Amino acid sequence: MKHIQIIGIGTGNPEHLTIQAINAMNAADVVFLPVKGAGKEELADIRREICQRYITRPAARISEFAVPQRQTAERSYAQSVDAWHGEIAGIYGELIASLPDEGSGAFLVWGDPSLYDSTIRIIERVRRESGLDFDYTVIPGITSIQALAASHRIPINLVGKPIEITTGRRLAQDGLRSDSTIVMLDGEQAFAKIDDPDAEIFWGAYLGTQDEIVRSGRLGDIAADIVTLRAEARQRHGWIMDIYLLRKGRDFEE
Amino acid sequence: MKHIQIIGIGTGNPEHLTIQAINAMNAADVVFLPVKGAGKEELADIRREICQRYITRPAARISEFAVPQRQTAERSYAQSVDAWHGEIAGIYGELIASLPDEGSGAFLVWGDPSLYDSTIRIIERVRRESGLDFDYTVIPGITSIQALAASHRIPINLVGKPIEITTGRRLAQDGLRSDSTIVMLDGEQAFAKIDDPDAEIFWGAYLGTQDEIVRSGRLGDIAADIVTLRAEARQRHGWIMDIYLLRKGRDFEE
Ligand SMILES: C[S@@+](CC[C@H](N)C(=O)[O-])C[C@H]1O[C@@H](n2cnc3c(N)ncnc32)[C@H](O)[C@@H]1O
Ligand SMILES: C[S@@+](CC[C@H](N)C(=O)[O-])C[C@H]1O[C@@H](n2cnc3c(N)ncnc32)[C@H](O)[C@@H]1O
Repeated sequence: MKHIQIIGIGTGNPEHLTIQAINAMNAADVVFLPVKGAGKEELADIRREICQRYITRPAARISEFAVPQRQTAERSYAQSVDAWHGEIAGIYGELIASLPDEGSGAFLVWGDPSLYDSTIRIIERVRRESGLDFDYTVIPGITSIQALAASHRIPINLVGKPIEITTGRRLAQDGLRSDSTIVMLDGEQAFAKIDDPDAEIFWGAYLGTQDEIVRSGRLGDIAADIVTLRAEARQRHGWIMDIYLLRKGRDFEE
Repeated sequence: MKHIQIIGIGTGNPEHLTIQAINAMNAADVVFLPVKGAGKEELADIRREICQRYITRPAARISEFAVPQRQTAERSYAQSVDAWHGEIAGIYGELIASLPDEGSGAFLVWGDPSLYDSTIRIIERVRRESGLDFDYTVIPGITSIQALAASHRIPINLVGKPIEITTGRRLAQDGLRSDSTIVMLDGEQAFAKIDDPDAEIFWGAYLGTQDEIVRSGRLGDIAADIVTLRAEARQRHGWIMDIYLLRKGRDFEE
């Protein structure tokens, strides 16, 4: 049977790679590398560097493939994501079909495969829909949440208290619901519209890369600065990935 | 100035170590190893194995220290944790004071330092209270959440939906509040009291170690089995660490 590894590679720092991930990469006959088109060339370069640095097995082959853009016109968010996954599943199916019999392939996933990433879902879909016979394994990786916390040198929870992880879109709808709220996938700077000036924000962009930027402070004091800084950085790079923790209250307050 | 590294080591599998963590361990003059007394000998052994496997610098020294037990009698949870942190801060202060001038020390933290762990808080307290002059860095590690998700080969969120991370104690108080709820530090098997038989549970114990156990299914069907399995495993080992995800609903449901 063919075997697929879904490998978490951390969030930009090649030293985020675990020994388990490196061994898994070296066990693969082919490492599949997504090339995302417009703006994301830097991310593809990080993946290439990781392969170059860690793949020591001479027979291993690297195979680049293009990832389609998600179409959003005239469909709901769910429809749009579902159709996009279907398209990617078609591509993954071809990649897996191209492996030698009993061969193994690896998909490198940004951060960890379990956190706002659909590689696992799409691989399950290939198994359901393509009739291809293969097994797969998931290797954990450092997430952008851990990278954010490490750079700020903070715990993400208050002592014994819960944490919410959410998206910019949901934060804008639901507001702050937890003492500790981590926000990812925020294209609308939802933090700037939160009416809680005394909350603290711990923000980071391009975490783990050489362009890492971090800021922290009272939300009312620095939200506007982060909006400006983010817009400038985004323009300079042509893309941005950022994440933040919003925190209310203190340890040992009841 | 002295330098301290707070290094995440993953959750039991020595291959969870990142290249960054290995380099940081090798940069330290002294690696401080907590020895937790009763039952936790296996965890100390995993830490020792990690040092043996990865520390290649001959001059590096390993220094074991005993961690005091938290006293809970006649005090609130917050008072009890606060007093315990104070006691550990005293010990950390002595360890740091014992480092050579300009020397560096490393604390190895289970999983990631940002997730339900107080090493960062305690190190900050040593800086505030001891008058010692030192700087510190945090190195991220694989958390038990990522280990759980990888073993079950699941994403922790539904597409575009939030995640709550909480404790057994809070789950018992608050019930299920999110589509995806991760529960840690659950000494009371709070899942068994959740009245939502159609929720799915993805449970794991001793994740990453050779004794890893995982179970998943409909909560109403398997909660009682997990309670029994957990009690047996706990008795056999003398200790247990377990974590689970409770999930309601499905991807692409609105
Ligand atoms: C599609 S999700 C993938 C998350 C990834 N699987 C992980 O484990 O971090 C992309 C989001 O992750 C966050 N992110 C990923 N890498 C980041 C980085 N290097 N710096 C800041 N945020 C990052 C951002 O919030 C971004 O919108
Ligand atoms: C004090 S917290 C520390 C968490 C750790 N910092 C992390 O990143 O996973 C301890 C809790 O983590 C979870 N945990 C840690 N290691 C685990 C393992 N190997 N298997 C299952 N659960 C684990 C359990 O819920 C346990 O009660």
